[in-house]
Amino acid sequence: MTSTDTVLVQRSDDDRGVVTLTLQRPEAFNSLSEAMLAELQAHLDALKADTQVRVVVLAAAGKAFCAGHDLREMRAEPSADYYRSLFGQCAKVMMSIQRLPVPVVAKVQGIATAAGCQLVAQCDLAVAAEHCRFAVSGVNLGLFCSTPAVALSRNMGRKQAFEMLVTGDFISAAEAQRRGLVNRVVPAEELDAEVAKLVDSIVAKPREAVALGKALFYRQLESGMDAAYVDAGQTMACNMMEPTALEGVQAFIEKRKPNW
Amino acid sequence: MTSTDTVLVQRSDDDRGVVTLTLQRPEAFNSLSEAMLAELQAHLDALKADTQVRVVVLAAAGKAFCAGHDLREMRAEPSADYYRSLFGQCAKVMMSIQRLPVPVVAKVQGIATAAGCQLVAQCDLAVAAEHCRFAVSGVNLGLFCSTPAVALSRNMGRKQAFEMLVTGDFISAAEAQRRGLVNRVVPAEELDAEVAKLVDSIVAKPREAVALGKALFYRQLESGMDAAYVDAGQTMACNMMEPTALEGVQAFIEKRKPNW
Amino acid sequence: MTSTDTVLVQRSDDDRGVVTLTLQRPEAFNSLSEAMLAELQAHLDALKADTQVRVVVLAAAGKAFCAGHDLREMRAEPSADYYRSLFGQCAKVMMSIQRLPVPVVAKVQGIATAAGCQLVAQCDLAVAAEHCRFAVSGVNLGLFCSTPAVALSRNMGRKQAFEMLVTGDFISAAEAQRRGLVNRVVPAEELDAEVAKLVDSIVAKPREAVALGKALFYRQLESGMDAAYVDAGQTMACNMMEPTALEGVQAFIEKRKPNW
Repeated sequence: MTSTDTVLVQRSDDDRGVVTLTLQRPEAFNSLSEAMLAELQAHLDALKADTQVRVVVLAAAGKAFCAGHDLREMRAEPSADYYRSLFGQCAKVMMSIQRLPVPVVAKVQGIATAAGCQLVAQCDLAVAAEHCRFAVSGVNLGLFCSTPAVALSRNMGRKQAFEMLVTGDFISAAEAQRRGLVNRVVPAEELDAEVAKLVDSIVAKPREAVALGKALFYRQLESGMDAAYVDAGQTMACNMMEPTALEGVQAFIEKRKPNW
Repeated sequence: MTSTDTVLVQRSDDDRGVVTLTLQRPEAFNSLSEAMLAELQAHLDALKADTQVRVVVLAAAGKAFCAGHDLREMRAEPSADYYRSLFGQCAKVMMSIQRLPVPVVAKVQGIATAAGCQLVAQCDLAVAAEHCRFAVSGVNLGLFCSTPAVALSRNMGRKQAFEMLVTGDFISAAEAQRRGLVNRVVPAEELDAEVAKLVDSIVAKPREAVALGKALFYRQLESGMDAAYVDAGQTMACNMMEPTALEGVQAFIEKRKPNW
Repeated sequence: MTSTDTVLVQRSDDDRGVVTLTLQRPEAFNSLSEAMLAELQAHLDALKADTQVRVVVLAAAGKAFCAGHDLREMRAEPSADYYRSLFGQCAKVMMSIQRLPVPVVAKVQGIATAAGCQLVAQCDLAVAAEHCRFAVSGVNLGLFCSTPAVALSRNMGRKQAFEMLVTGDFISAAEAQRRGLVNRVVPAEELDAEVAKLVDSIVAKPREAVALGKALFYRQLESGMDAAYVDAGQTMACNMMEPTALEGVQAFIEKRKPNW
């Protein structure tokens, strides 16, 4: 995998399988141009097939994390077909994050608005610098953030999500954490270290267990409880038959570290 | 629209489309008699068809917000058919709030119990005075608040909702905010001003965007994520083709206010 | 009902219908051996049929609440069929807690990990001593806590649940309360009294109302809102026709205590 115009790809040089995707259009507040969406999609597709990868960090260059769609582009071609295609392309990127077999951690160093806030909501985990703010502000321009609403309303209470969507108001990083939109909030100078802690914790686990678990996690959320338990039980039986789990449990019994 | 016996209807005289419905049976703690439910339904039906309306405030007169069903009425006609019809009538009012194309803000100035607490939960947004308390207390009389449970359990965590339902205990306004039942809590003397802020923010947005967005918001909550994104993408494409959105985005690009 | 090897059964001697099930394998951190799961299942089946019971407390002996599955047993018979059967047996116990007509209160006096944390999540209500900690730590051994994820992700936000599942990290009792996993947190010496308060509140309500309400509560959570209201309205009409509810409402009108 190599970097593209709008997305910097960095792979840790220590064989741990840590890949960082950095949005790099800081001059445009990392807004999601069609080109950037296409490049993100290509990177996510490549990552999905790459069994060496263990965790993905989604980061951004400059002062903003991501300001949502590229409004100049959107305004240049005003047709319903174009917009349907554009929002479809964006939703595909979002679902590709969820469908990746490895966890995706949003590393939020600046404001995240509209589809930028959606990106944070869609990632499996998120760490934010304490000065960051979050909004789904399309409604200020007359464009209700309907696709961001899908991810946002699955991260926090419905009244709180609806208030953000209908007012367009910002919330602080602390408030985002209280509501469930981000996992951890730290001073800006500790953002790298806090993300690294989470990454270290994830790469210490067997890839198979995490991949089976992540897929099951999102599947079962959309099932009734009985069906969820059937699915989870089968997943856990498969997981238990993995050599890594058999060794992990054996090591626990013998009070030693697993040989993975 | 004109006021009825139990519901005062006030329309802002400034053409902004702000309608306030005030429950006005303070001597009965604004309990939801059949007459009041019928009148609320008629007002909600009229509001749904009125394209001049932009936001509805649901308020109450007197010390209590709403004490739930009118128990004298309920006890007077003890038949299963009557109760089925009564709870059906009440659920229709509740769903009409959700189906209104404009946001409904609960302005909670006093205690809200049983179906009164459900009213708050069912509104899109809620602002409460800090002395208010909330309970689903039917269980104290041997009547589990089953219909309130529908709205309540979609506003807060299931253990927290179940505790309220099975104990009948009150929670404070501050706790209601922490759990997600209300958006904002303010001193009683600031309740008008805080509701006005929310109302001002909503009427500053194009009606079409808010109407499309509100309907999509509740639809997508009941879908799986893939279907939710398809629906949201189509909704957003429709929204973007509205003249208000095209102008809003153009104005943003030109760094000026939209001409709506 | 009589106690078995791994589960102590205690019935209050005051005819209030309070049954306490205590996991009693403290030397094994109350891990859920097959024998314990089978005994729990038998007790839950008996409780379901016992109309004298009003509330169940699920407690544990020793320092730990429950450490999840018995790993020695699991490792001894490594076959996919065995694991499927084991996780199916465990899920059946969990669903039996939800299907019991009376509320089940987890009384958490020590750490709860993996399926032990799931037990807490699955109970209708939970009270924890403030030193308790909670984790779904299977991933540390290479075994993602897929079945615990079903209950956990229905108690707290998805990002917060996923973080616990993928890191295996502990959260404090205070954090568990903030997230929704437990209802109340108290100093260890007040745990008995706090559970007793909740129990007292529950047994003061008519059994029929609570049974109808609990079943409806979980059913409607898995429905769309329209269907949920239809179900809840019918449930409430049935509930209202119970002599206890008719008397409860009448007593309220007459400003006296109900004669139950």
